Parts: sequence; C-alpha cells; structure tokens
Amino acid sequence: MFEKVLKDPVHDEILFDDPLLWALVNVPAFQRLRRIRQLGTSFLTFHGAEHSRFAHSLGAYETMRRVLYHLQRECGWPTDPREIRLALAAALLHDIGHGPFSHTFESVLGVQHEEWTHRIILEDPALRSVLDAVDDEFALDLVRVLRRESRYPAVESLISSQLDVDRMDYMLRDAEATGVSYGLFELARLIRSLTYWDGRIYVKRQNLHTVEQYLLARYFMYVQVYLHPVTVGSDVLVENILVRAKDLIAQGERIAMPEPLRRVLQDDMEDVSWYIRLDESVLLYAFHTFAENPDPILRDLAERFLHRRLFAPVVRQGSTPVDDLALLRTTAKAMGFHPDYYVSLRACKIPGYDVIGQGLLLRDANGRVEDLSQASKLIRTLVPSREERLFLPKEMLDPAHPLSARVRSIAYSAF
Amino acid sequence: MFEKVLKDPVHDEILFDDPLLWALVNVPAFQRLRRIRQLGTSFLTFHGAEHSRFAHSLGAYETMRRVLYHLQRECGWPTDPREIRLALAAALLHDIGHGPFSHTFESVLGVQHEEWTHRIILEDPALRSVLDAVDDEFALDLVRVLRRESRYPAVESLISSQLDVDRMDYMLRDAEATGVSYGLFELARLIRSLTYWDGRIYVKRQNLHTVEQYLLARYFMYVQVYLHPVTVGSDVLVENILVRAKDLIAQGERIAMPEPLRRVLQDDMEDVSWYIRLDESVLLYAFHTFAENPDPILRDLAERFLHRRLFAPVVRQGSTPVDDLALLRTTAKAMGFHPDYYVSLRACKIPGYDVIGQGLLLRDANGRVEDLSQASKLIRTLVPSREERLFLPKEMLDPAHPLSARVRSIAYSAF
Amino acid sequence: MFEKVLKDPVHDEILFDDPLLWALVNVPAFQRLRRIRQLGTSFLTFHGAEHSRFAHSLGAYETMRRVLYHLQRECGWPTDPREIRLALAAALLHDIGHGPFSHTFESVLGVQHEEWTHRIILEDPALRSVLDAVDDEFALDLVRVLRRESRYPAVESLISSQLDVDRMDYMLRDAEATGVSYGLFELARLIRSLTYWDGRIYVKRQNLHTVEQYLLARYFMYVQVYLHPVTVGSDVLVENILVRAKDLIAQGERIAMPEPLRRVLQDDMEDVSWYIRLDESVLLYAFHTFAENPDPILRDLAERFLHRRLFAPVVRQGSTPVDDLALLRTTAKAMGFHPDYYVSLRACKIPGYDVIGQGLLLRDANGRVEDLSQASKLIRTLVPSREERLFLPKEMLDPAHPLSARVRSIAYSAF
Amino acid sequence: MFEKVLKDPVHDEILFDDPLLWALVNVPAFQRLRRIRQLGTSFLTFHGAEHSRFAHSLGAYETMRRVLYHLQRECGWPTDPREIRLALAAALLHDIGHGPFSHTFESVLGVQHEEWTHRIILEDPALRSVLDAVDDEFALDLVRVLRRESRYPAVESLISSQLDVDRMDYMLRDAEATGVSYGLFELARLIRSLTYWDGRIYVKRQNLHTVEQYLLARYFMYVQVYLHPVTVGSDVLVENILVRAKDLIAQGERIAMPEPLRRVLQDDMEDVSWYIRLDESVLLYAFHTFAENPDPILRDLAERFLHRRLFAPVVRQGSTPVDDLALLRTTAKAMGFHPDYYVSLRACKIPGYDVIGQGLLLRDANGRVEDLSQASKLIRTLVPSREERLFLPKEMLDPAHPLSARVRSIAYSAF
Repeated sequence: MFEKVLKDPVHDEILFDDPLLWALVNVPAFQRLRRIRQLGTSFLTFHGAEHSRFAHSLGAYETMRRVLYHLQRECGWPTDPREIRLALAAALLHDIGHGPFSHTFESVLGVQHEEWTHRIILEDPALRSVLDAVDDEFALDLVRVLRRESRYPAVESLISSQLDVDRMDYMLRDAEATGVSYGLFELARLIRSLTYWDGRIYVKRQNLHTVEQYLLARYFMYVQVYLHPVTVGSDVLVENILVRAKDLIAQGERIAMPEPLRRVLQDDMEDVSWYIRLDESVLLYAFHTFAENPDPILRDLAERFLHRRLFAPVVRQGSTPVDDLALLRTTAKAMGFHPDYYVSLRACKIPGYDVIGQGLLLRDANGRVEDLSQASKLIRTLVPSREERLFLPKEMLDPAHPLSARVRSIAYSAF
Repeated sequence: MFEKVLKDPVHDEILFDDPLLWALVNVPAFQRLRRIRQLGTSFLTFHGAEHSRFAHSLGAYETMRRVLYHLQRECGWPTDPREIRLALAAALLHDIGHGPFSHTFESVLGVQHEEWTHRIILEDPALRSVLDAVDDEFALDLVRVLRRESRYPAVESLISSQLDVDRMDYMLRDAEATGVSYGLFELARLIRSLTYWDGRIYVKRQNLHTVEQYLLARYFMYVQVYLHPVTVGSDVLVENILVRAKDLIAQGERIAMPEPLRRVLQDDMEDVSWYIRLDESVLLYAFHTFAENPDPILRDLAERFLHRRLFAPVVRQGSTPVDDLALLRTTAKAMGFHPDYYVSLRACKIPGYDVIGQGLLLRDANGRVEDLSQASKLIRTLVPSREERLFLPKEMLDPAHPLSARVRSIAYSAF
Repeated sequence: MFEKVLKDPVHDEILFDDPLLWALVNVPAFQRLRRIRQLGTSFLTFHGAEHSRFAHSLGAYETMRRVLYHLQRECGWPTDPREIRLALAAALLHDIGHGPFSHTFESVLGVQHEEWTHRIILEDPALRSVLDAVDDEFALDLVRVLRRESRYPAVESLISSQLDVDRMDYMLRDAEATGVSYGLFELARLIRSLTYWDGRIYVKRQNLHTVEQYLLARYFMYVQVYLHPVTVGSDVLVENILVRAKDLIAQGERIAMPEPLRRVLQDDMEDVSWYIRLDESVLLYAFHTFAENPDPILRDLAERFLHRRLFAPVVRQGSTPVDDLALLRTTAKAMGFHPDYYVSLRACKIPGYDVIGQGLLLRDANGRVEDLSQASKLIRTLVPSREERLFLPKEMLDPAHPLSARVRSIAYSAF
Repeated sequence: MFEKVLKDPVHDEILFDDPLLWALVNVPAFQRLRRIRQLGTSFLTFHGAEHSRFAHSLGAYETMRRVLYHLQRECGWPTDPREIRLALAAALLHDIGHGPFSHTFESVLGVQHEEWTHRIILEDPALRSVLDAVDDEFALDLVRVLRRESRYPAVESLISSQLDVDRMDYMLRDAEATGVSYGLFELARLIRSLTYWDGRIYVKRQNLHTVEQYLLARYFMYVQVYLHPVTVGSDVLVENILVRAKDLIAQGERIAMPEPLRRVLQDDMEDVSWYIRLDESVLLYAFHTFAENPDPILRDLAERFLHRRLFAPVVRQGSTPVDDLALLRTTAKAMGFHPDYYVSLRACKIPGYDVIGQGLLLRDANGRVEDLSQASKLIRTLVPSREERLFLPKEMLDPAHPLSARVRSIAYSAF
C-alpha cells in the first residue's frame, strides 16, 4: 500500500495514497512553492505569517481529499478515478504559478498568476511528464478545470468559487500562522454541508449558519489581515521598487540583478523555466543588490523594505480629489521625494459575498434551490466594498519637517 | 504611555512598553532575523517550520518579561531598572548572530554564532547607538551576560541554562509551527515555579513534575524534530555545498556567488556588516547560481537542495568501523560520486539533562537545595546520548544499480 | 503574599490575590454553583456542555481582573481599592442566584434569577459575614451594582451590558466545552479595545472590527448552541414536568419530592436557605422520584427527560394560528397526550445587537462618540429577531400512528 | 445512508453509521452515564473536570472506529462485520457499570465496576434487546471481550491494555477538560503506529517515541491530576461518609436516603435495575439529606463535602509506623474527631509501565518482536510506585488548637 503522511499544523495529517499525486509534489516547480510565502509581505505586519504556498497547496489538496470522501459516501459522486485525480491534482497545483510577492508583480507587469499556472502545467517538462503518465489529455484538462471551462462544473466550483478548497485551507492556515481567531470556522461541518446534485455542488439549506460563519470569517480576515494598511503599504513599496527598476532599464541603465528577475521585468519569458527560477530568495537578493545600486531612489526604496522602514498608510473615506493628489505630488517633490515612487494611492477591495454570476446555492431537503443571499440577511450586508488609501514616506508626515503641515492637511482632508 | 502590541501565535500578544527595547527591534541587524529560519533546514521535513528567528527572539523577550514580572511580585527581584533592561535586551538579542542555516556554517567554518552575536552587539553602529543611549557600559554588559561572565548570575541563567527563556519559547514555537504536540508544556506554571534567592534562580521543589514535563518535552523535540534524519541529511547537503564552494575557491576557481557569502567562505570578515548582509535569501540565491555552475559537483548538490532530492539517512547503532567507511567511499567513487561530498557520517547528540556544571537546582520551602537529578528518577535517565548516521545519495542504495548491494550490505551492517 | 492560582481551560490560570475574594469562593452558597450547569439542558444536545456556573463565575472574575488591570494602566481608573473589590466581587457573584436549569424555573415560577442573586447576597449569613468585613454598605452596594442603579456606571456596564465580563467569559467557555468555534473571539484585544472616560466605558473606534467579531460570535452561539431546537425542547420538557408537579400539588395530591423543590413550587421561600439547597442534584433526584410516581403524566415526562426521549421540535416561520393550535391540542388528546403537557409552543428570541437604551459607544482619538450601529453595517443587521417553535412527543409525528398525518399537516403548515 | 454526527471537544466529530450502535447510545442504562462524572471528585481540584463518562464512552467508541479504519486499510483486519461491531460495542459500553464516584464505592463495598458492567450487559432488558438483535451470543461475547477471555485477543487488547482506546480517549479528554497539557499526545500518529499480525496488535518499532510520549503523558496525568492529593482527599471524604452510613445501618439506625443507595450499601442488589438508578444526582442528594441527619458525624462529613471543606492531605515518604498512627488516632479522639472517620491513611499507586503479563510489544519491519521496555530506557524508569498519604481535618493541624502541635509532629515526622 502506497502511503505518505505529512504532519500539518492545520489538518494534523495530510495523506497521499496515490503515487501520481506524490510525484507531483516532488517536481521542482512544485518544490519552488516552498520559497514563496502564502501571504506575501504580511510577515512585515504579522511576524508569524511566514508560511509558504507549498504548505497551503498541500492543505488545499487535503481539503479536497476530505470533500471528495464526504461526497462519495453521501452522494455517490465522484466515481470516475480520472475525475478524482483531476480534482486532487487541480487542488494541489492551483497556485503553482504564483511568483514572489505575487500580487505586486501582477500589478506591475499586468500578468495574472493564473496565466503562469496554466503555462507551467502545460510547458514545464518535469511536471508534464508526470501528468502525461495519466493520459495525453490530462494536463490540458487540468488547465480547463482551472480556467473553469465548464467541462467539470462540480470539480471546478470546488477548486474556484466562493466556497472552494483553496479558501477553506488558506483561511484556517493564515489564522493559525498569524495567531488570530478571525479566520476560524467549522471545517468538518462545512465539508459535510456540501452536497452534489445533477452535476453541481450545493450547500444544504439546513447548514445556512455554517456557511454564514465561513463567509464572515473571510470578511474578518480581509479587514483585519489581508488588507491591513501596513501590509498594503509593504506591497506598495515592493511595487515601487519594481517599477523603478523597470523604468531604469527602460532608460537604458544597466542595473545589476538576478537574471530571472531581469527577464520578467523585460517581459522576455518565452521560456517558462525563467519564471520558475524566480522565487522570494531571488527577489530578496535583488533587493540586497538594489540596496547598493548607485541610483538613489532604487537604493533607498530597497533599504526601506529590507530594514522595514515602511510607508505610512493614510486610510481615506471616499476618493481623493485630483487636485489634492497633484498638490501632494508637488509637495513631495519639494521635500525631495520623487512622487512617482513616493506618493501612491491604492484602492482596496473587500470582496464580501458576490451574488453575481457565481453565488452559492442552497438546496433544501425538498430540492428547492435559492441563492445564499436570499436566505441570509447577514450575508446580504457583505456587499463588496472599496476603500482608498494613500501611502507616503513617514518623513513627509513628520512634524519636524516644515512642509509636513501641508502634507497632513491634504492627506487627512478627506475625513 | 508607550505601548506596542504584536500578535503572536504562541504568546497571543507580545508587549513592548520600553521605547529602548522597541528601538532595538527596529535596527536593521535585528530585522535581518526575519530572513533566517528558526529551524534551519527543518522546513524540508516539516513543511510548517518556516517561522523565523525574528519571531523567536520576540518570544524569548516576552517570556523574559513574564518571568521578571513573576519574580518581582513574588521575590522582590529585580528592582534595578538597568538590570531589567539588561535582561530584556539580552533575551531579545541573544540570537542576533545567527546566520542562514546557522549550524551548517558553524560546522563548515568553525565559528560559533555566539561569537557573531557578541561582535554585532559591540560593532554594529545602528545597534550600538541604541544601546549606548542607556550608558557606555550597556553594550559591553550585554555581552558579558551572554558570555555568562557571572556578573549577573540570575539574569545569565534566565538567558542561558537548561531552563531559560530561549528554550521556553522555542520549544512551544517549534511545536506550534510544525504542528506536533511533543514540545508542549505548562509555560505559565513553569514560570511560577521559578524563585530567586540570594542572587540565584531556583525551581521550587513542589514544582518538580512541571520541570520534568518541560525537560521531557525537550527530549521529545530532539528525537522527533530537531534531530530528524531528513533534517540532518538536509544540513549535511548544505554543508557539502559550502565545503565544495570553499574547496573550489581554495583551488583558485572563480565561482559566481553573492559577495557576503564569498567573504564568509574566505574568512574575510574584518567588517561585521558583511556578515549582517548574509541571510537565507542570499544563501538560497547562491544555491540558485551554484545550480548553474560549470562544476558538476557543486551544480548537482545545489540542485538536490533546491529540488529536495535529499540524501538518504542510514541510522546506525554504534560507531562505523574505519574499514567500512573506506570501502563505502571506494564504492561511491566507483559509482561516480565523489566521496568527500557524497558520503557523510554525522554523530548526533541528544542533549538530555546535563548535571555537570549547570544543573537545575530545586529549593524547598525550608531552603533545602538539591540537584533536579537527585529528586527525579525520570530525569536521571535523560543522560546525553549520541547516535551515528550515514548520509548517501538515494541512488547509491537503489537496487537498480549493480553496486548498490555492496553499499547496502555495508550501510546496514551495524544493525 | 497571598496568592491562589486555579487552572482553567479558558484563561489558563485564574489568580486570586485578595483574601476577601478568595473567602467569597469558599462560601457554601458559591460552592453550590458547582452543582448548577452553565448551559442548563444543553448537555442533552452537546455532550461536552457539562461545565458549571462555578467555573463561569471564576472566569467572569478573571476577565474583570484583566479588564481592570488594562484600564488602570491605560486610563488610570479605577484607583479606589473599594471600587476594585466591588467590581471583582460583582463579577464573581453575579450568577449566585441561578437555580437548576434556571431558565425553566423562571418560566414556571415567574421569578427571575437576578432577584435570587440579590436576596442571597443580602440574606445568606455566611456570604454576608465575608462582605460585611469590608464595610456595612458593601453588600448593599454590590446589589446596587448588579441592579444597575447608576452609582458606579462604569463598573455596572462591565458587569452587565452588551459587552460585559459575563458574556466575554461564557462565550469562550461554552465554545470550548461544546467544541465549537462559533463563540471564539480575540479576548485580549477586545479587553485592550476598552477605554474609560469621564465615568463611562467606551470602545475605541479603531477597534471596531474586534467588537464586530465579538458580537457576531454571540449571534452564532445563539443560533447554533443556545437556541438549538433540541435544547429548547429539553427545557420545555423540564418546564412541563415542573408545571405538572405544581398542578398536582395545587390539586391537593401528595407528591414525593425533595423539600427544597416543594418549597420553591409552593412559593414558600421566606428563608433563602431553602433556595440555596436547591441544585441540579436535587432536581434530578426529584425527577428520579417522579419517574416512580403513580401519576402517569408526571412519571412519563420524568422518564422522558432521564432517558433522553425528548420532544420533537418543529421550527416555524411566522406565528401559529390559534385554530391550528386548538386542532393540534384536540388531536393530541385523541392520541392520548394531555395537551397542556405535550403540546408546547415557544417563541425564541435571538438577541442581536440592541441599540435601544444600552448600545455600545465607540470613541475615537478625537473624543467623538457614536453608537456602534452607526459605524457598522454588519451590526445593524443584527436586529433582535424571534422564531416560533412547536414541541410535541415524537410519537405524534410517527407515520405508524393513524392520526399522525393530521398532526404533520398542521405542524408543517406554516412553511 | 444512516449517519449521526456528534460534536465533540476532543475528536471534533463522532460518527455513527451503524444503527445498532446508535441504538445502544439511546438505552437508558447508557444515558445514565451522563450523570456520572468521568473523573469522580476531581472537579473539587480542577473546576473544569465536569465531563461525563457518557462523553468518554462516545470518545472511546470513536477512537476504536479510527483504529479499526486504520488497521483495515493497512493490515486487512478486521473484515468480519460481527467482530467490528463487537469491538465498537465493547468500546462504547466498557464503562457502563461505573457508579457515582466509582472508585470510592469499590473501596467501601468491595465490588469492582467491571462486574457491574458485565451484569448490566447481560441483565438490563433494554440493552439486552438491542444486543440480542445481532444474535444470541452477542451480549455474552461482549462480556467475554471485556473479561479478556482470549477469544478475540486483538479486540481485547484494543479495549483493555496499556495502549487501549479507553486510555487514548480519557487522557486527551481529561487534559482538555482540566486545561492541562500533561495528557496530550499525538493521537493520529499513535493510531497509525498500531499494526496487526497473526491475531495480535503490535506497535511498529519505528514509532517507539510516539508510544513513549503517550506513556509519559499518562505518567504526568497520574502525578498531576489523577492522584492529586486534594482529589484523593475528596475521595476519602466520600468513602468515610459511605462507611459511616453503612455503619449506622449496621447498628440498626434508620437513616433517610434514596432507596438505590440503601440497596447498594446493604448489598441487596439481586436486581441490576437498582444499581442503574444510582447516579451522582442520587448520591449528591443523599449527601444533602445526610447533611440534615441527626448523627453529628454523618452530618458533618456530608457538609464538608458539599461545602468543600476537604481533609488536609499530608504526603509521606515511606510507610507510617503503627505507633504513630495509634497516637494520631488517640489525639484525634481527644480533639473530638472519631478516628475511624477522620484519620485516614491511603496508599496511592502510580501505575507506570507494567512489563509483567501484558507489556506492549514492538514489531520491526523484519518481524522482530521485543517488549517496549527493552527498547526504551525512559520507559524502564516508569516502574509502578506507591506513595502514602494521611488525611485529616484541617482543624487538627490548625496552630490555634492546643493539641495541633502533637498532630503536626507525628504527621510530618516521616520527612
């Protein structure tokens, strides 16, 4: 009997009993996820948040394994061994395209990590050779599931929806690592609340409150952890570093940096292997070299990140008037800060519950179906919302500086 | 009122109310500890073990804060604000000299991380300027405490003994991160079991079983986590990489690698700032570059580490005869593996309870003192022990290889 | 130094350092709380819910101790040692008037447990002698605090409001005992979110989400645990037993039962000591004797409770029409069930957040005050709501019985 | 599909999928276990220890379910559905014969709870009718398993040995309820360490340390919780109450007490239904009536228990000389305490690891078997040991009493 058991702080034990899935874990492109933090720059806010996407991917796999075990026992689905492998492999590999501090790269380069996930699955030879051992279509089907092409609608919604194994694992794992209780919910019961009917996944009507707890836990994780102003400010800093490096390259400067990063910044990625070589050790090492670069802006920004002298966040209600922003930029310049890299505005979106397109469907004992938001007043309040934030060097707000009064009056005017 | 509160997965909250100590946290040399894993290569065995020395250092500080609060309430010691700061600063900074995968460096270069801790405290200008704000002697006194020079014996034993704030924090933190219960013990009660008398720390006789639990938890962490054969094998791999790089440099080869690592390998560290620039991102990036080095041994070893193709551990009872080892090395060579880098023997020491020199003293209500080992039969069994292990590439044991039978017969002969 | 430390599953350790408060713990009227379950009949739904009001009272005391420690450090209040003792004693004794399955008694006899709390504090000689050792007014002031007479408004709101030490402890304790995560929230942070200003307690505006989490945890505990239909059905059974016994007494029957219960049922309680002798062992023993009573109704109901053959709950949306209820009662009679004891309707109130009268006030750094519901959309959805439930013997719904179809058609008509 | 899921604080969820086993849960004799505390009088030491034998019995069942699932997957045993039911039913019912504060009754009456377990299984009509539905031999086979008659040796050792589902559940449950970490161990891993070979259960040699942790956790639970002097003193008090009541009956006194207790004390139990009616509510009610009995000794002892004025424990090293005890008894008499009920000596046995007869066998990958104690030095130190303790009213040690000096000099002489 093939069996590998991994000790896990969230699920206690993670079990592999299919050699194919274990082979996927041992592919270099997957091992690379050990060098990508699950929560990006959050470790600068919550010092416990050092857990990796590797751990989360294993956890998403284990959650899928338990979900399928439940659905098989209770609903007789899935029975097709290939579909089961597809579901488990998709859970395991869904994040394989994440890069270092992923969201910052997406913002700077305009490429989604999902696209990298699809490319790696299709193009990485080591990964491909494992997947092709199933059959010629398996890698492609995996990408189809991840792209939600509706060939395997039930599996797809377990992989990517408002109630998927990805979220189920990461909320518990992020809560555990940071030490907060905000993300906790009743996992075993939530899994048992799922039901399969005619090709789709539903939540049993009687488990309404269990799903409410899960969605509210998600809300609290967003407002308390994921969108913490210090974390968003750290992301902004990483983005500004990358933008500065990109701009310098575009200006023809020769900037010392690891080759995989240069390729990414120059959008020269015909070969996916360059991307796979890019992990957080490479990016942090790039920041080390930037911290010794002659360009004062690049050097200063990199040092700020490495030594955690982060931007100050100013949370704003409503949008920032164009004039205000212009005045802030002028003042920054007057204080010696290049506004393109030192005055940043970000809109943060709290996702809430999204009824459009892909709501969660409740199904009662009589087969009646309704959207979760119809049944729950609480959930109806969780409409997606946004908040605007301004990020500046702390020095610009320091009363010791003669111009800081002007900055403060603009920055806090929106209140 | 000055107050900074950090959320922590072990102690719930970590509290700073002295601006001096908070200033120490914000020194670059301390922030660097975010980029050093607490458990070195253990993340390759327990995927949860990604927590940093930064988090542990904060936890050791918080534990010291609670110990001092207890002793002040119950024993009226310490009262001197400078001694309190000394104790707290020592707890915070005790690991500041750790390098990436620290123990492997110590083994390769023969320099203890403690020496780096002392040098950084004395030589890092940013750290020094904070410490000197207390008084001219403070930095030096800190080093004296860490060196156990017996000027502050009670503080010293709280910082470094068999029952110190370092171990109290790391056992709980390592247990929490890996998800095992082996390292758990009753922290609050253990703290209350401490007492101060006439310049020394004792354990109250009535709390014998609480200390037993703590020492057995430590034993289990060693046998189950710290000395896990897969982890030791990962350390061996790192060591062999570093030794190979060092050997190539000594042979006059020009090996591309980050400057701080070159300085360390060449023992060219007159300036402590080079050492401070060396963290795990730098080392991992070095491994990335090694993985593209023309030297086949360096390249192969680096790839093994990055892709987690680790050495196979063979645990042995008793010592390995010299002849056996020689034969193994010859066979390795015949199989195409340079024995200096592919056949490694390591002796692992399980520390147990050490009665010599620095045993724990119990003190009963009548002031009678005895060594812990006199009172506890259980503890007397925890004598330090050692175990020998052999590490080889998995290929050498693979039955598919014609020479593997010989390797196996030697490797497993000791049983 | 006086110090008593109790090990606690919720707060780890509970600390007494005031001999007066410890003396209160050792008064028989307080020890009696060991024989009263915190969650009444919930143990019939959640088998873990066996924890006592004794444990909860200690926990409320410990929570108050931590709240006061925080407020003293941060706001310089309270400073008066008598007020501190008053707050701690009130937290400790706030539930001393609870009887066995308290809420059922309140419903049957129309006496609130709060009145018993006040009487016991004022009339129990052992308790009184401890309290009078402070001063002549102390016992009376304690009752004034519990009655919220506004002499000590800040203490009063910490004892009894929507954010008091009572709820803070019981939510965590009930969650821990039952094993559900619904009631978890960030206690330490919630405590630090409290602030004192000009005689009142406020929540800091910046901690809005921490209070949201706490109030939503409360909501989930109500819908998932406190108002669980099986639990409410168990309460109904206890009530019907007590009503039947009361009715039989009123009819002049001589029913064997423990004397304290007879006194309570006959409302013959001029002496509070009778009430103090009434605990759950006495009531359960009464049920044992009822289970051998010649009256078939009393006997049957008592056996149902002891052997957990509970009433079936039928949850209804909207109110039950008078005609339906009349028809149900007639049918019950025809099936051999006396409708007064076997057909019960209960309205359950989910408390939500109550803005009227005693809302929670947020206070920002500039001293601006607003009601929590103004700041939080989520909280505004937590308006108190009610749900009606019908409780019947399972046999009445059993398809095997010829009349059950009629019962079912009425019972489920409201859907 | 039949499925009942119970929420549990230890195992998260307890699953029933066999209607027969669920029917056993609903038998009155099993529901009665809700009214028996798992840890007897320990709640007087650890206020969290209110959990019931009902909860523990469910937990032992769930642990057995998981053990069997593991063994079936890995070893292909058991396959016989009847043997599986036997194992699960035995786990569920193994404690059904426990009475209130069981160990005190065993001591006073000389009847083991195991005998009651066997009688109830064979004689209780409701239970019997469920069991007989399997087959005529099932109830008898159940008793044979519980008696370890070696017909089902593997099942028997899972039910009752040094590594059985009983201990696995109660250590975790008792640790969780009291809030101590002493009893924690790696349950899932311990279960996976079990293996079945040729009709017997073994522990895999490679899991040595996992069993060590479990056995040491057990040691710590004994020294810190189960044999806590305050708990043993509470047991002594219950015993002395029962002995006094028995003595008074023997002297022909008519003592008011519940009938089931009278029957037990008079050894008049031809019908097992009397025993089933005896639970902790009945015993506590008896103590309430004793607290109003004219006999001053019975009254005083009962009040001491109800109001927690417990005996003072004096822990002794070595045996108490006969002369000392005689002198103590004389002094007690002189102080007005009847020595038969107020001077009690108890020997407490710490079980340790028992190699004789039923040691745990390790089995390595090559099939070599050895006793656990051969492989583990730690375990060899866990030899059973005993400790003698003397219990007296606190008043006898009170310095205010003129004779207390003599008591103290005798009581503490053994040190």
